[in-house]
Amino acid sequence: MAEVVTGEGTRIDDGATVGYDYRDDPGPTVLGDDGVVRRNSIVYADVRAGDEFVTGHGVLVREESTFGDDVVVGTDSVVDGRVDVGSHVSVQTGVYVPPETTVGSNVFLGPRAVLTNDAYPVRQATELEGPTIEDGVSVGANATILPGVTVGEGSFVAAGAVVDRDVPPDTLAVGVPAEFRPLPDALEGGNAIA
Amino acid sequence: MAEVVTGEGTRIDDGATVGYDYRDDPGPTVLGDDGVVRRNSIVYADVRAGDEFVTGHGVLVREESTFGDDVVVGTDSVVDGRVDVGSHVSVQTGVYVPPETTVGSNVFLGPRAVLTNDAYPVRQATELEGPTIEDGVSVGANATILPGVTVGEGSFVAAGAVVDRDVPPDTLAVGVPAEFRPLPDALEGGNAIA
Amino acid sequence: MAEVVTGEGTRIDDGATVGYDYRDDPGPTVLGDDGVVRRNSIVYADVRAGDEFVTGHGVLVREESTFGDDVVVGTDSVVDGRVDVGSHVSVQTGVYVPPETTVGSNVFLGPRAVLTNDAYPVRQATELEGPTIEDGVSVGANATILPGVTVGEGSFVAAGAVVDRDVPPDTLAVGVPAEFRPLPDALEGGNAIA
Repeated sequence: MAEVVTGEGTRIDDGATVGYDYRDDPGPTVLGDDGVVRRNSIVYADVRAGDEFVTGHGVLVREESTFGDDVVVGTDSVVDGRVDVGSHVSVQTGVYVPPETTVGSNVFLGPRAVLTNDAYPVRQATELEGPTIEDGVSVGANATILPGVTVGEGSFVAAGAVVDRDVPPDTLAVGVPAEFRPLPDALEGGNAIA
Repeated sequence: MAEVVTGEGTRIDDGATVGYDYRDDPGPTVLGDDGVVRRNSIVYADVRAGDEFVTGHGVLVREESTFGDDVVVGTDSVVDGRVDVGSHVSVQTGVYVPPETTVGSNVFLGPRAVLTNDAYPVRQATELEGPTIEDGVSVGANATILPGVTVGEGSFVAAGAVVDRDVPPDTLAVGVPAEFRPLPDALEGGNAIA
Repeated sequence: MAEVVTGEGTRIDDGATVGYDYRDDPGPTVLGDDGVVRRNSIVYADVRAGDEFVTGHGVLVREESTFGDDVVVGTDSVVDGRVDVGSHVSVQTGVYVPPETTVGSNVFLGPRAVLTNDAYPVRQATELEGPTIEDGVSVGANATILPGVTVGEGSFVAAGAVVDRDVPPDTLAVGVPAEFRPLPDALEGGNAIA
């Protein structure tokens, strides 16, 4: 196991793994204050998170990922390595975040949302490129975001939508493939996670 | 760990957790006769289930949830607390059931079905309200049910459907967003789980 | 626990389970050379895999499943028993493969793809029949494949598609329900997994 450095008040459950060795001689796992890693979750070496980093159960966070403060990663979610996440972010149950993804601050990723990073899986040798989820975005349950897509600041992706191109700021994306509409009144005003 | 009370013939695998302490001084976990909790599954304190409560692996059942008799919760499914489930219910693999959801009897929830409870996630401070799945309903694989939606008795939600409003009884809901059709002959006659 | 036979260079992590007893007196689990079963994954008795069988974390592989050489089963994927898989297959994170499914060689199953095997769940007593995924097929993220569907050689199922009938060879299937189009140039040339 790699070195593990945790701040004050951070609890690692029995049956959770922090600092999983994914290669020879990896860097440490560094978690800030007041975090919780719950039973059956695994956090790899070479992960850095700020204060109040909280996981559900059965979470996997792979190497070279970074998190700001006040981030919740819900049960069964996978942050699959080389992911950067801001502060005040709520990742609900069973979300998939692939390598080379950027998630801003004040972001909500709904249950079973699926982000992707490979436009031509095993057909072309392209660079992997995950989505960019800008500040203040909410992604609905079971939505799918295609590789390289940027979801603009303050936008809202509806449950079950499949988003195959960039979403402008302050926009509602809905349907398969997603169409864009102005934000309805009920979704205006921005995210309030912290 | 909280107190655990199990009936006759109930087996808890090595590596399963029953009675997970989610707060100070929680109530007991009570399971009836002839149940099985399989390896890597976690059942919280303050859960009550009847006879023949069977889980797959990697299941999470959180606090203040209740189950009748003869309920199967499949591998990787999450019953996220404050959920009421009837009897003779089959929850397949990887289903998500959020807090404040009601599931009747003789219900089938297909693989990776996603139920939701928050209409305006982190945009408005609304009450969380999960769906109501009435008796005899089947929900297809990878379908998404929006917050507060009632799926009426005997109805059938097709695989991949996104259901954004109440479904009348004995109706087929299909598509994104779901349209309603009469039940085809092949889907008439009600569920037979027990 | 059942008998476990592994080839040279195969590693089973602490906290992984190989040879889970699903019935009295099951057959052995047989894994070839140079495999890895990672922490929190469970492989049942009566499973046979060739060389370079690699799992992520939290994987479940049930009984009477067979795998060729060079197969990766990603984190949280479920191969639910009585499944045959060829060689050079990449199963990404959180894929569901039901019983009675056949997967060819050089196949890619994207994150959270859901295959199904029951056309009339709990409404009719039909034979369970999973899809047949022919050689060289790629299935996109969060796609749903209905029971008994054959996806023809070299075809590509787009992310989020719901496929409710057979897909001819060398075809792009896209949408809900999926429509068929010729493969675009960028997706021609076949899969290159090994």
